[in-house]
Amino acid sequence: MLVRLMYVSRAVPALDPEELQAILRASRAQNPALGITGVLCYSDGIFVQVLEGGRSAVNRLYARIVGDPRHTEVEILVYEEIAERRFAGWSMGQVSVARLNPALLLKYSETATLDPYAVSGQVSKALFDELVATAAIVGQS
Amino acid sequence: MLVRLMYVSRAVPALDPEELQAILRASRAQNPALGITGVLCYSDGIFVQVLEGGRSAVNRLYARIVGDPRHTEVEILVYEEIAERRFAGWSMGQVSVARLNPALLLKYSETATLDPYAVSGQVSKALFDELVATAAIVGQS
Amino acid sequence: MLVRLMYVSRAVPALDPEELQAILRASRAQNPALGITGVLCYSDGIFVQVLEGGRSAVNRLYARIVGDPRHTEVEILVYEEIAERRFAGWSMGQVSVARLNPALLLKYSETATLDPYAVSGQVSKALFDELVATAAIVGQS
Amino acid sequence: MLVRLMYVSRAVPALDPEELQAILRASRAQNPALGITGVLCYSDGIFVQVLEGGRSAVNRLYARIVGDPRHTEVEILVYEEIAERRFAGWSMGQVSVARLNPALLLKYSETATLDPYAVSGQVSKALFDELVATAAIVGQS
Amino acid sequence: MLVRLMYVSRAVPALDPEELQAILRASRAQNPALGITGVLCYSDGIFVQVLEGGRSAVNRLYARIVGDPRHTEVEILVYEEIAERRFAGWSMGQVSVARLNPALLLKYSETATLDPYAVSGQVSKALFDELVATAAIVGQS
Amino acid sequence: MLVRLMYVSRAVPALDPEELQAILRASRAQNPALGITGVLCYSDGIFVQVLEGGRSAVNRLYARIVGDPRHTEVEILVYEEIAERRFAGWSMGQVSVARLNPALLLKYSETATLDPYAVSGQVSKALFDELVATAAIVGQS
Amino acid sequence: MLVRLMYVSRAVPALDPEELQAILRASRAQNPALGITGVLCYSDGIFVQVLEGGRSAVNRLYARIVGDPRHTEVEILVYEEIAERRFAGWSMGQVSVARLNPALLLKYSETATLDPYAVSGQVSKALFDELVATAAIVGQS
Amino acid sequence: MLVRLMYVSRAVPALDPEELQAILRASRAQNPALGITGVLCYSDGIFVQVLEGGRSAVNRLYARIVGDPRHTEVEILVYEEIAERRFAGWSMGQVSVARLNPALLLKYSETATLDPYAVSGQVSKALFDELVATAAIVGQS
Amino acid sequence: MLVRLMYVSRAVPALDPEELQAILRASRAQNPALGITGVLCYSDGIFVQVLEGGRSAVNRLYARIVGDPRHTEVEILVYEEIAERRFAGWSMGQVSVARLNPALLLKYSETATLDPYAVSGQVSKALFDELVATAAIVGQS
Amino acid sequence: MLVRLMYVSRAVPALDPEELQAILRASRAQNPALGITGVLCYSDGIFVQVLEGGRSAVNRLYARIVGDPRHTEVEILVYEEIAERRFAGWSMGQVSVARLNPALLLKYSETATLDPYAVSGQVSKALFDELVATAAIVGQS
Ligand SMILES: Cc1cc2nc3c(=O)[nH]c(=O)nc-3n(C[C@H](O)[C@H](O)[C@H](O)COP(=O)(O)O)c2cc1C
Ligand SMILES: Cc1cc2nc3c(=O)[nH]c(=O)nc-3n(C[C@H](O)[C@H](O)[C@H](O)COP(=O)(O)O)c2cc1C
Ligand SMILES: Cc1cc2nc3c(=O)[nH]c(=O)nc-3n(C[C@H](O)[C@H](O)[C@H](O)COP(=O)(O)O)c2cc1C
Ligand SMILES: Cc1cc2nc3c(=O)[nH]c(=O)nc-3n(C[C@H](O)[C@H](O)[C@H](O)COP(=O)(O)O)c2cc1C
Ligand SMILES: Cc1cc2nc3c(=O)[nH]c(=O)nc-3n(C[C@H](O)[C@H](O)[C@H](O)COP(=O)(O)O)c2cc1C
Ligand SMILES: Cc1cc2nc3c(=O)[nH]c(=O)nc-3n(C[C@H](O)[C@H](O)[C@H](O)COP(=O)(O)O)c2cc1C
Ligand SMILES: Cc1cc2nc3c(=O)[nH]c(=O)nc-3n(C[C@H](O)[C@H](O)[C@H](O)COP(=O)(O)O)c2cc1C
Ligand SMILES: Cc1cc2nc3c(=O)[nH]c(=O)nc-3n(C[C@H](O)[C@H](O)[C@H](O)COP(=O)(O)O)c2cc1C
Ligand SMILES: Cc1cc2nc3c(=O)[nH]c(=O)nc-3n(C[C@H](O)[C@H](O)[C@H](O)COP(=O)(O)O)c2cc1C
Ligand SMILES: Cc1cc2nc3c(=O)[nH]c(=O)nc-3n(C[C@H](O)[C@H](O)[C@H](O)COP(=O)(O)O)c2cc1C
Repeated sequence: MLVRLMYVSRAVPALDPEELQAILRASRAQNPALGITGVLCYSDGIFVQVLEGGRSAVNRLYARIVGDPRHTEVEILVYEEIAERRFAGWSMGQVSVARLNPALLLKYSETATLDPYAVSGQVSKALFDELVATAAIVGQS
Repeated sequence: MLVRLMYVSRAVPALDPEELQAILRASRAQNPALGITGVLCYSDGIFVQVLEGGRSAVNRLYARIVGDPRHTEVEILVYEEIAERRFAGWSMGQVSVARLNPALLLKYSETATLDPYAVSGQVSKALFDELVATAAIVGQS
Repeated sequence: MLVRLMYVSRAVPALDPEELQAILRASRAQNPALGITGVLCYSDGIFVQVLEGGRSAVNRLYARIVGDPRHTEVEILVYEEIAERRFAGWSMGQVSVARLNPALLLKYSETATLDPYAVSGQVSKALFDELVATAAIVGQS
Repeated sequence: MLVRLMYVSRAVPALDPEELQAILRASRAQNPALGITGVLCYSDGIFVQVLEGGRSAVNRLYARIVGDPRHTEVEILVYEEIAERRFAGWSMGQVSVARLNPALLLKYSETATLDPYAVSGQVSKALFDELVATAAIVGQS
Repeated sequence: MLVRLMYVSRAVPALDPEELQAILRASRAQNPALGITGVLCYSDGIFVQVLEGGRSAVNRLYARIVGDPRHTEVEILVYEEIAERRFAGWSMGQVSVARLNPALLLKYSETATLDPYAVSGQVSKALFDELVATAAIVGQS
Repeated sequence: MLVRLMYVSRAVPALDPEELQAILRASRAQNPALGITGVLCYSDGIFVQVLEGGRSAVNRLYARIVGDPRHTEVEILVYEEIAERRFAGWSMGQVSVARLNPALLLKYSETATLDPYAVSGQVSKALFDELVATAAIVGQS
Repeated sequence: MLVRLMYVSRAVPALDPEELQAILRASRAQNPALGITGVLCYSDGIFVQVLEGGRSAVNRLYARIVGDPRHTEVEILVYEEIAERRFAGWSMGQVSVARLNPALLLKYSETATLDPYAVSGQVSKALFDELVATAAIVGQS
Repeated sequence: MLVRLMYVSRAVPALDPEELQAILRASRAQNPALGITGVLCYSDGIFVQVLEGGRSAVNRLYARIVGDPRHTEVEILVYEEIAERRFAGWSMGQVSVARLNPALLLKYSETATLDPYAVSGQVSKALFDELVATAAIVGQS
Repeated sequence: MLVRLMYVSRAVPALDPEELQAILRASRAQNPALGITGVLCYSDGIFVQVLEGGRSAVNRLYARIVGDPRHTEVEILVYEEIAERRFAGWSMGQVSVARLNPALLLKYSETATLDPYAVSGQVSKALFDELVATAAIVGQS
Repeated sequence: MLVRLMYVSRAVPALDPEELQAILRASRAQNPALGITGVLCYSDGIFVQVLEGGRSAVNRLYARIVGDPRHTEVEILVYEEIAERRFAGWSMGQVSVARLNPALLLKYSETATLDPYAVSGQVSKALFDELVATAAIVGQS
């Protein structure tokens, strides 16, 4: 049973670029053995991550992530059983966003700031999909 | 919660081009802080405006506009909750219409005059969409 | 409220080409003021006309046409409220058909003759649409 | 080919009850031979009539009715090809309405007066159906 | 053209029961002439009102209501063109709610308090419909 | 934004009836303030719980529950944004199942044992719904 | 492969009641061996028959019937592959119609006479179904 | 009323190429006057023919064809009322098939032989359509 | 993964009632441990059996049944993944059919004999469902 | 009646490349006479085969294959009646897969291994279709 889980969280204020790299390194080291793939996006102190894989594996990993002290307010946006993955080629891709395009943010939000907490999961997913379609995904797959 | 509000109104007889510019200037100065975007169309003494933004912001602004003495008979044509904006890139675009094409008007109306008061909101929206698709939108975004 | 009315009728035997031109001249002179547009097709002694416009205007005109002694057996084929006109650009276009293509007639009828009286309004409309798509429409708009 | 035609018209001011009876008498005398059935409703100086029958028969009768000097502003509300009649049992039933219920009128109109000229054919049909469902139909069938 | 407009607003703190009665009296005195019907619900300092009628009439009245100093934060929840009214029988009915049932509030909201500002118009409408179905509507119609 | 979250977990072997009552007591004490409602079912060492409430509240509570040492293998079965709750009347109802009916289990599973880990979330939901429909829900609401 | 075939034909003028009985006797004697079932209706010199059975059997029988000199103008109204028969219990039932109800005929036709030649197969089928539902079917099955 | 009739039959063993030409000549001579169009396909001793035209004309012709001693086991595959013909341009086209492609036959049948008797009418129609799309149609139209 | 498998087979000529009982006894003894449920119908030398259970279990059992020398021509009629079983309460119910009703057989077949080999799986399923609905199912569950 | 049957099985450990060729040779020798077509895929000790043909022929062949000692755990993934074959051109094509692409496997499975036993028939079919679309099919047709 494959599932997709997309969540949002706030990085703790102290999070520095090096720690972001550490998270990605750990993910790429551990996800292949769990059969987990996905992408991680970090911008303005906010994480949005998509995890795809077996239902048990994704839940086990999510339980660890939810308890990770490097972020807070972890909130599931989308959780669905899927017939096929969207990110089968990335153990954990990084969506690199230097600065988010204000018009893209406005298109889906009341103000030009990234705030997945304020909108429905489907809207976040639409914004995220548009982001992925225009941004580069990097990282060893 | 994003909404789109489209209304029609009649400019007071005395309205001169300079006042139209003043309205646009004020809109462009104030809308960004409210997270409001949209376009304004003026032709033959009739305003049609589309406002997009958070529900509270749009309602607050509409309450001010409804009381503005520069126009009368303000009537809502379309009001809907939306998943994404159509005019995310314009704090207030101006649809410049020198003279409306009679065949375009006839296509949606009984006679070749612009009269959103006489038709349903959906018809006005269709006419407006066709207008926007063929006219230029101007203004600093 | 816009409507479209399509009817069929038989010209009186005596009708000559000049009278056909007179009908078209009268239509083009009077329809613009009524906000009426449409096309008229004449072939083999049979008229098929499409009238588009405000509901009252179309009905008023139709009442006059029904009583016109230059044709008989006037029968409505299609009458529908519409959101937009199809012939917004023609006060009364003339579909010029020298001789109807037999295969086109056969496609929609039992024999290769034009007989809207024998088929449903929808079939006449389909035949007429195909005719308009391939024939020229003439007349000052 | 069966059709249903529903129209509205205004009785001339001078119309008295006896003339209404004359119209009904004539209808019941002539419709059976034409295969025409239907109902006629008169209220507040307004006629709404439904005619059902063969397409030619209905059009021939309608051409006569449109020219009848006892009413004006005859306007077709609904015209449709049908698979089966609704009023097969009435050569011309009379929907007797002493005084229309204001709440019923308000339900479908802007004000509590009967004005089929101001609304779409579908709305008139809905109002008429509700009327027929609650009123008595009288007349020898 | 009939429309339905449903809005929410906050009564000013000072509003006393007598003033609520004054609003209802005024509404019942003035709405019939405007062809406006509807219901008003007041609970916990919050108004929810449904207005039904001709598009111009409803907009004209709403412009007056929006400027009424007895309430603030007037926000449109639902605005739609309708084929038939729901409250044709009430010039302005009063939905009397002594104390709202907490389970009913919880069914549609995050907490057991009435907060139409926090949810979509459709959700407010569903809550309101269930309220109307179970509460009494009072007032001379 | 209301969500519904349904998960399965395995009680630790040592769990005794008193501890189950402690969980229910704690839930009923704390959920009302969070605006959370739902039901908890315990059978054969397996928990299935449905939580309904605001998205943040449900996620915050789920993060606590996932780390609770009294159960393991916590796995989300269903997570969906909802327009209305199903268990608005229960701060935490207890579905009391003395012994599950084997035919009910077989209806949805390969063998007559309760194993939500082996089937899709939708199947678990169907089984759970049938269970709730036939079992009693107990507990102070 | 089961099919249903419904046709209309005109009895030759000379057909007397005894001959009708002969046809029914022959049908009931021969159809069971062919696996054919159905009903036969005779009224006003017109036959309408429904035959159900294997595709080859029905076609073989129809070829014989089409050449039978006791009727002319045999015309197929409906021919369809079916998953199940409608008249499985009748080797050939007789729909006994003393005199057809004029309102039933009018409901589906332009005039109160039975004329399946003038209408589409679907309309004949609807009329026939209503007839069967109200008339008695007789004959040894 | 236009119909399409498609049937299959077996040529009598003795049928020689000249007789096939005679059938086609007769068809092309007689069909135009009947308003009948279509195509005839002959292969491996099997005829498949499509006839399109007025319902009476097609049935009259089919009654003659069914009794023609040059073929046997005539079985209708498809019979349907149509809004427009597919072969309006051919009084009787000949689909010339030297030798049928085995893969095309296998695609729709259990073995690589042409056997419309063994499959449903819809399958024969699909095979026939694919055949027509790839083969040439010959004959004076 | 639950599946349902329905097949038909011919009992070998020599099969006597005692052997049928032996098959049922064996099934009831072995199916519960495999989590398999279903019904078996025997009539006129033909078996139709429905097996429901886990996909592996059903396939393993079917491989054994296919090789059982007590029947031949074992042919799968329906095989589908299911969300819920239909015969959860029967380890192997026996549909007791003294003599099949001819009208029921005719309803779905060309002749009044039971021949699932001649019709599609869906038709057999429909016939079987109607049979089960009217016959008794016996056997210890 | 055409059917498609897709199954999975495990080759016995001892299976060598020569034996695979023997199976393919036997299939290509025998399938044409049975009207059977399809493809066979072998990878990592797992067979997936698609068989298309008449229902009896496919079932007879499958009964033989299920008992073949060169593989075990034969499990049907998909069985459906079809209107047309997909592999009409191959008596038994061989899908040659040197090494399966891990991303393709991951797209449909929890881990990057081929395991049709763990997923639904529809998922296996999707994976297989994508495989066929990208791999070469070889073998004399
Ligand atoms: C935003 C965020 C995303 C993370 N994503 C993953 C991930 O995809 N895979 C992973 O193994 N750990 C991920 N982690 C790290 C886990 O929370 C946890 O630190 C890690 O799994 C611990 O593994 P370890 O205890 O084996 O070192 C993530 C952490 C954060 C804050
Ligand atoms: C047709 C029309 C359109 C208007 N559109 C806007 C607008 O988009 N944004 C805005 O701030 N004011 C708009 N206004 C002006 C407002 O009615 C009002 O004058 C302005 O918001 C007053 O702002 P101030 O009191 O802060 O100067 C519009 C006025 C008219 C007549
Ligand atoms: C086939 C046919 C089509 C006609 N179409 C129109 C028309 O589109 N507009 C129009 O004004 N008159 C049309 N007429 C003419 C009217 O019947 C009528 O003669 C004319 O409106 C009279 O106008 P008048 O009394 O003002 O001269 C048509 C007549 C015929 C026979
Ligand atoms: C509102 C209205 C409805 C009428 N309905 C019918 C009708 O259903 N059938 C009919 O024959 N005449 C009807 N008439 C009368 C016709 O207009 C016309 O007077 C009548 O058919 C004349 O017939 P006669 O010339 O044969 O006397 C109606 C008239 C009016 C004003
Ligand atoms: C919550 C609320 C609802 C109201 N509803 C109505 C109404 O339905 N009809 C109405 O005429 N006035 C209504 N009013 C009052 C109007 O705002 C306004 O006071 C009134 O129309 C003024 O009329 P007057 O100036 O003619 O006295 C309402 C006011 C409030 C605060
Ligand atoms: C199966 C299970 C279900 C639970 N459900 C709830 C619940 O609905 N609400 C709640 O507050 N705690 C629930 N708990 C308990 C929490 O995990 C946690 O112990 C509790 O919220 C701690 O609260 P405290 O730290 O304030 O005492 C549940 C625990 C388990 C094992
Ligand atoms: C209207 C009509 C319906 C008929 N229906 C049947 C029928 O259902 N079955 C049948 O065997 N013959 C039917 N017949 C008779 C056949 O046309 C034909 O006479 C009969 O099958 C001859 O059989 P025989 O040559 O074996 O006597 C019908 C004839 C007519 C005129
Ligand atoms: C397979 C086949 C197809 C036929 N198609 C037609 C046809 O399309 N039109 C036609 O008039 N005759 C067709 N015929 C011939 C008729 O059966 C019949 O011989 C012919 O209509 C006799 O006409 P006649 O008596 O006027 O000579 C066909 C015959 C066969 C065997
Ligand atoms: C028509 C038919 C249906 C059968 N159904 C079942 C069944 O549902 N379960 C079962 O265990 N055996 C069934 N059998 C018997 C098996 O084919 C086989 O004989 C049995 O499973 C052998 O089990 P054993 O070798 O353990 O005795 C059936 C046999 C026939 C002929
Ligand atoms: C994976 C697999 C696929 C097979 N596919 C076919 C096939 O498509 N056609 C076939 O005739 N035999 C196939 N066989 C072989 C049959 O199981 C069986 O050996 C063969 O039909 C025996 O035929 P024979 O007894 O006539 O030699 C297959 C065997 C295996 C293991």
